[in-house]
Amino acid sequence: MISNGAVYKHEFSFSQEEVNKFAEVTGDKNPVHLDAEYASKTMFKRPIMHGMLSASLFSKVFGTLFPGEGTIYLKQTLNFLKPMYVDTTYIAEFTVKEVIAGKHRAVVETLIKDKASSLVCTSGEALVLNTNKI
Amino acid sequence: MISNGAVYKHEFSFSQEEVNKFAEVTGDKNPVHLDAEYASKTMFKRPIMHGMLSASLFSKVFGTLFPGEGTIYLKQTLNFLKPMYVDTTYIAEFTVKEVIAGKHRAVVETLIKDKASSLVCTSGEALVLNTNKI
Repeated sequence: MISNGAVYKHEFSFSQEEVNKFAEVTGDKNPVHLDAEYASKTMFKRPIMHGMLSASLFSKVFGTLFPGEGTIYLKQTLNFLKPMYVDTTYIAEFTVKEVIAGKHRAVVETLIKDKASSLVCTSGEALVLNTNKI
Repeated sequence: MISNGAVYKHEFSFSQEEVNKFAEVTGDKNPVHLDAEYASKTMFKRPIMHGMLSASLFSKVFGTLFPGEGTIYLKQTLNFLKPMYVDTTYIAEFTVKEVIAGKHRAVVETLIKDKASSLVCTSGEALVLNTNKI
C-alpha cells in the first residue's frame, strides 16, 4: 500500500547503444539523439536522450516497483526542463501527493534529477490506478 | 512553418516483437504488456501496449515530420483513455492550437485514435520549440 507523502527513488542511466535501440523501436530518429556531429552544432553540443525514454522510467517504476504489479497508468504530465545525456546517472524520484483510496488511485509527483548536481531535468505528475496496492 | 489550426496525421501500428523490444530497452517489463496468459486474467484480456510507446509517436512526429528537424520537446500531457493493442492500426493526430511566433513555440493538441473506430485512446497537449520552422 502506498500512503500520502511516501517517496520512492530509482537510479538509472542509459548508454548511447540503448538510445539507438529506443530510436529504432519508436521510429524517433531525430539526429539530435543519434548523431554526435549533428548534435555538436546544436545548443546541446552532444547527443541528448529522448525525453520519452526518460519518461518511460516513470512507467517502469509504476508498473514493476512502486506500487508495482497491477498498476494501470491513467495520466502523466511531462516538463522537459533540461537536456539529459547518455552515460550519466539520474534519479527518478516519486512523491505521493494524494491517495484517492476509494478509487484505488494516487496522484504522484514525478521528477528526474541529475544525480551529481541534484538539478531537476524532467518534472511532472502522474495519476495511477492499482486495485490491490492503493 | 506551421500555422494555427494546421492538422497533421500519422498512421502507425506496433507488433508484439516491437513491444517486447521497448520493454527491453526501457526496463518496463510489466507483464500486462508481455505475457498473454497474465493479460488474459486482467480487464484487458490480452497484452496492451505501453502508453509511453504510443506517446513516443508524438516525439517521433515532432522531431522528424511535423514540424520536423530541429524541434525541441518542452512539454507533453498524456491521458491514457483506452488500452492500445499490438497489430492494430492507430492514427496520431496533431492540431496546432496556438503559435507563439515570437518565441518559436507552438501548443499542439495530440491525439491517438483507433483507425477502425475513430475512438480516442490517448489525448494530450504538447509545447514544442523550433527556431527555423515555428
